Amino acid sequence: MSDLRPPEHQVAGHRAAVNKLGPLVDGAGLFYKPLQALDRGEQELAFYTAFSAHPAVPPRIRDTFFPRFHGTRRLPTAASPGESHPHLVLDDILDGLAAPSVTDIKIGACTWPPRAPEPYVAKCLAKDRATTSVLLGFRVSGIRVADAGGAVWRPDRSELKGTDIPGVRRFLRRFVSSVGGDGLDCALAAAVYGGEGGVLAQLRELKAWFEEQTLFHFYSASVLLSYDANAASLAGGSVGRAVRVKLVDFAHVVESEGVIDHNFLGGLCSLIKFIDDIVAEVSRTAPAGHS
Amino acid sequence: MSDLRPPEHQVAGHRAAVNKLGPLVDGAGLFYKPLQALDRGEQELAFYTAFSAHPAVPPRIRDTFFPRFHGTRRLPTAASPGESHPHLVLDDILDGLAAPSVTDIKIGACTWPPRAPEPYVAKCLAKDRATTSVLLGFRVSGIRVADAGGAVWRPDRSELKGTDIPGVRRFLRRFVSSVGGDGLDCALAAAVYGGEGGVLAQLRELKAWFEEQTLFHFYSASVLLSYDANAASLAGGSVGRAVRVKLVDFAHVVESEGVIDHNFLGGLCSLIKFIDDIVAEVSRTAPAGHS
Repeated sequence: MSDLRPPEHQVAGHRAAVNKLGPLVDGAGLFYKPLQALDRGEQELAFYTAFSAHPAVPPRIRDTFFPRFHGTRRLPTAASPGESHPHLVLDDILDGLAAPSVTDIKIGACTWPPRAPEPYVAKCLAKDRATTSVLLGFRVSGIRVADAGGAVWRPDRSELKGTDIPGVRRFLRRFVSSVGGDGLDCALAAAVYGGEGGVLAQLRELKAWFEEQTLFHFYSASVLLSYDANAASLAGGSVGRAVRVKLVDFAHVVESEGVIDHNFLGGLCSLIKFIDDIVAEVSRTAPAGHS
Repeated sequence: MSDLRPPEHQVAGHRAAVNKLGPLVDGAGLFYKPLQALDRGEQELAFYTAFSAHPAVPPRIRDTFFPRFHGTRRLPTAASPGESHPHLVLDDILDGLAAPSVTDIKIGACTWPPRAPEPYVAKCLAKDRATTSVLLGFRVSGIRVADAGGAVWRPDRSELKGTDIPGVRRFLRRFVSSVGGDGLDCALAAAVYGGEGGVLAQLRELKAWFEEQTLFHFYSASVLLSYDANAASLAGGSVGRAVRVKLVDFAHVVESEGVIDHNFLGGLCSLIKFIDDIVAEVSRTAPAGHS
């Protein structure tokens, strides 16, 4: 317990600080997420509980694309000494990545559950229209790029918020580029986005599940992409566990009423197209490989 | 010209009547659609003009899924004797079907172009939320079922407007059922929805195009499904030209800004899942075939 600390590489969401609850990691593979206020924490807990045990969820989907859920634990809070707060105990999805590059992409043109209360709908809708969500079916909520040389890039919050379509394209290029120079060389595009086990292959597997699954609708959830630029496997072009695609943030997941999550699926297809375009462009302009 | 008359089998949209403009057919394969007011007519004409000549549209997509465009023609109007009104001249997509069953399915959770004026957005959004559009990614805007015996079923307008998710499922079952009895026997599900050339196969081909195309976003457009219950080919289980899947209503199509139409695509995937479920259910419960 004494080793709990805020995660170093968080790119979106609330942060732990003095007088503020935020997620913690134990450095041994676990991530502690404080239950959120306003029923959101209870809803996220209900989702993890239902999802973890659901017989219709393919184990491969659960293991590949979701953090493993280990129940809840009350932890003392720095915010209120002497008191404790319940936390979800999850796998730390960045565990083992020495210098993680991470991006949090909120999926769906619509981030409000259709039966949500009116003020919440109005607030979300305004944000969905002010960001790229309505236009693209997703928005980039956070990004951090670390390269093998140890350099790190992250944008200002204002740069993220005001992003337009070309801006999203630049973020997705920058995510697989060296940090120096113009940061858009796409040096790792083939290794991280392309190939077997790369982001594209994983997103396509996730998409195939969303074309079928009628269990949950993932409003306002994110796809978190991460990789370790230092991983020896990346340099060799084989990615293995070095490239990760995980879904996170389930405070607004609802039951599906028997229909697919067309909102998430449409956004996912849009993201796939963006990334596929980058891979295609890089493979057109790259010099020939080992021949 | 003297043979122009309102189409018999229209299931949605404006109808021609005394003092009212509406579409006309010539009975020889052409459909005349009056240009709509408020720029909508001009927008639809601009779409047909651009789309017809666009080098990036695969000819097979254009020929299979869109009515062919033959320019415009001014026609005298019954509404205002002595005056004429411009019409789009299109292929009559029901031409040659003796007793067509037709359903008009408006695709997309969101029927408003993101950059539309605010009052229009508010009006469409209210309707998208009041119907199944937001929940399902589509709504049934019209349906007419004719069976081989000549019987015809169509719902009241109020029944259509108030439809919920189970109601949509019933409409999609009824569309391929005999008109008598409870109208839900799904007698033609395998022939119309399933198989090579059936609705599912055609919708999947359309979906593959929407996963790639970044030319147009089809807000508020419909997929019109039709077949002829009298076609000998249906009885034999082979559908050929007897089952048609066409896109219609392009007054709110906009350019894509280089991204896919995730809104249309998500709705299309949702519709495919509904229809796939019906085919799967029928094939599970059907007695074995010719064995």
